[in-house]
Amino acid sequence: MQLSTKHLLGIRDLQPVDIQLILDTATQFKEVLQRPIKKVPTLRDVTIVNLFYENSTRTRISFELAEKRLSADTINFTASGSSAAKGETLLDTVNNILSMKVDMVVMRHSASGAPHFLAKHIPAAIVNAGDGINEHPTQALLDAFSIREALGELAGKKVAIIGDIMHSRVALSNIWLLKKMGAEVTIAGPPTLIPVHLTEAFDVRVEYNLRNALEWCDVANILRIQLERQNQPLFSSLREYSLAYGVNKRLLDSLSKEIVIMHPGPINRGVELDSDAADSKQSIILHQVENGVAVRMAVLYLLAGGTQ
Amino acid sequence: MQLSTKHLLGIRDLQPVDIQLILDTATQFKEVLQRPIKKVPTLRDVTIVNLFYENSTRTRISFELAEKRLSADTINFTASGSSAAKGETLLDTVNNILSMKVDMVVMRHSASGAPHFLAKHIPAAIVNAGDGINEHPTQALLDAFSIREALGELAGKKVAIIGDIMHSRVALSNIWLLKKMGAEVTIAGPPTLIPVHLTEAFDVRVEYNLRNALEWCDVANILRIQLERQNQPLFSSLREYSLAYGVNKRLLDSLSKEIVIMHPGPINRGVELDSDAADSKQSIILHQVENGVAVRMAVLYLLAGGTQ
Amino acid sequence: MQLSTKHLLGIRDLQPVDIQLILDTATQFKEVLQRPIKKVPTLRDVTIVNLFYENSTRTRISFELAEKRLSADTINFTASGSSAAKGETLLDTVNNILSMKVDMVVMRHSASGAPHFLAKHIPAAIVNAGDGINEHPTQALLDAFSIREALGELAGKKVAIIGDIMHSRVALSNIWLLKKMGAEVTIAGPPTLIPVHLTEAFDVRVEYNLRNALEWCDVANILRIQLERQNQPLFSSLREYSLAYGVNKRLLDSLSKEIVIMHPGPINRGVELDSDAADSKQSIILHQVENGVAVRMAVLYLLAGGTQ
Repeated sequence: MQLSTKHLLGIRDLQPVDIQLILDTATQFKEVLQRPIKKVPTLRDVTIVNLFYENSTRTRISFELAEKRLSADTINFTASGSSAAKGETLLDTVNNILSMKVDMVVMRHSASGAPHFLAKHIPAAIVNAGDGINEHPTQALLDAFSIREALGELAGKKVAIIGDIMHSRVALSNIWLLKKMGAEVTIAGPPTLIPVHLTEAFDVRVEYNLRNALEWCDVANILRIQLERQNQPLFSSLREYSLAYGVNKRLLDSLSKEIVIMHPGPINRGVELDSDAADSKQSIILHQVENGVAVRMAVLYLLAGGTQ
Repeated sequence: MQLSTKHLLGIRDLQPVDIQLILDTATQFKEVLQRPIKKVPTLRDVTIVNLFYENSTRTRISFELAEKRLSADTINFTASGSSAAKGETLLDTVNNILSMKVDMVVMRHSASGAPHFLAKHIPAAIVNAGDGINEHPTQALLDAFSIREALGELAGKKVAIIGDIMHSRVALSNIWLLKKMGAEVTIAGPPTLIPVHLTEAFDVRVEYNLRNALEWCDVANILRIQLERQNQPLFSSLREYSLAYGVNKRLLDSLSKEIVIMHPGPINRGVELDSDAADSKQSIILHQVENGVAVRMAVLYLLAGGTQ
Repeated sequence: MQLSTKHLLGIRDLQPVDIQLILDTATQFKEVLQRPIKKVPTLRDVTIVNLFYENSTRTRISFELAEKRLSADTINFTASGSSAAKGETLLDTVNNILSMKVDMVVMRHSASGAPHFLAKHIPAAIVNAGDGINEHPTQALLDAFSIREALGELAGKKVAIIGDIMHSRVALSNIWLLKKMGAEVTIAGPPTLIPVHLTEAFDVRVEYNLRNALEWCDVANILRIQLERQNQPLFSSLREYSLAYGVNKRLLDSLSKEIVIMHPGPINRGVELDSDAADSKQSIILHQVENGVAVRMAVLYLLAGGTQ
């Protein structure tokens, strides 16, 4: 089997069978990562440019590790947001890079749709590593992989996505993926951070009460409060947010069953998630990080034409 | 045959036979880059430091790709201009790097003559990747390679270099190279951007009228307006510049013959070059980028002692 | 033999037998670095992240070269100091990186004790590449290696450490190491730059007169004036400092014997050290740099479980 797409722009464009293929392939790469020798020669003659127009420690390192473990050649390019300017300039930049015989571009950009624009105009494979407030597909894939690992399957599972849904590409990619794979989704948070159009576009439940959301779900995916993305004060204070929507161990222990705790990182400890919950055995946060490398290896391998 | 120089500081210092050797070697590396496996083990035990005291996306990536495809080990160091300070400090920095058993230094620096200063004091090979407003020799070599590829040879060909000649190390390196290889050169642009000393030092024609320059030439190498290098307003406005010296498809179509369009990039689309001309089939701009990797592989290979 | 520690946090924690082991192992790696093929496959399946929360050209390049010559996979991460924030966040960052199956972390941080904090909480090996004003252990090890190389042994040798002792992690690591290995130490400089607690904690001599210190010693390790670390004006002017504590060739020639000159770099030429002294044949400054790569290879090799 092969991917039905030549880019990974968003979960929106993927077929369930593609998602299944990526997750199954990632399972095999995760086995590779448990071995003493974690490197495979799979992409030995492939060159990948990591083009990050937005800062990102962990996503960039995760992709770079995935590339190096596939034996690809890696070139890093990090630009300050200001130089990103217009789409036309971005197209020139990427066309230039591709003319140098680069095979794949992993791109993070502050403009929603930037990778989709590029994909229309260039021949090489593009992996969206986060575009504006649109999608962050590899995050959703690694979240799905981690849920499947923890609970056996996605279909029928109840996932609550909690927090700043409005500014979160992680939320959007997760909703797309979970609905495609047959999971049930509740989005929870303060009304100011939950966009109405989402609940209209998707078959998702909305819950403004944190305890209700947690009681309902099998898995709580707690989002980072993205203060840097908020142009206006959407919630009166972090302290107020934390009181109403912060998850801690005491709250988790008061629920009628043990739920799985996820977070895409980096955690604002004491704001959306307390340390006693983040570091509890219910938490699979570090598994998510580990799985991220395996999932990215799978995506790069499959986009390079790999089959399963 | 071997290079007669141990550094590549500028085209000014090269013999025509050196230029010929680099271009012929680049032809072979370009063939390598067409293969599925683009990597050769040629510089497997060579360590190269890319020391960029000025920002440069494409030149740095091009060098890094060239190095990786030769299997060299690569270390990147990017400094903000401010830390570059005095020549003595630069010498200490480079001496330190060389003491770590580095074999070659690829250097971009805002001070004209910085690599020449270093070459007098250090044993390792230096490749000038652009120094102030002096030279950018690998750009001129890749331009020459691309002209030769498009037109068969350099000798006797008519090349118009158009735009901001005053602030352009690309122009200076190109003039040196083209004159050494027997091409005819016209420099064209507004009088404020054409330095008088150039026309006195070189046997080049000067043309203030764009149409005349284009009618005369076989190849037009259109330079980027380097706004960031202009300390004074040398032309009243970009719009005025564009009206008088901007190249577009309509103008090209009105000429009596089809000429080749080049640009060192990045293009200010709509200023010195319109998209309909930049993306036309007369344009070899993306070939220049592709050839850049092959030419830089040739330079690094030959400076490492490679023969032909 | 194996190291008795799983991290290299500071010289303070090392046994003399560990120091001996590192220096002896470095001797072997230095031999490797003299060969045409300087790369060994020793750490082929080891991934190392260089996590630099403070800028450092030469230390970062030295570590990266050491890693590449051991055939390790290397990931660089450079953060501006501001993002380093709280210890808890740092722990999350490092835990995340380790979850990606990274084997070692080389870390520079502006907070003294940051690597010690981490070492208490994480399973992987940490190499301290400089923490605040605390320690810079690989610098002390390469200094010791260089003294041993120049003078045959450390025991009984007289080392004067001159300059800004107050703000220098290099001084502190050197004092720990030299005292453990049986050398005699004098710290010399203006009273404002010599902390009283040091002279109480260690069996070191203090000397406020430069000439006396130089007459006494076999080796003078001249520190960089760290202007950027001084929150208050501790010395009235650089010129005054230079007059009282600057080392030049005339002063060296006036001594009763030839002493060895060292400097951790980068040199403020004309301030703490004049060029005629820095570049004289008494100076082993560039040997220190070369030895730095060998010493770092030894540290990484031994921490990865290597034996001797």
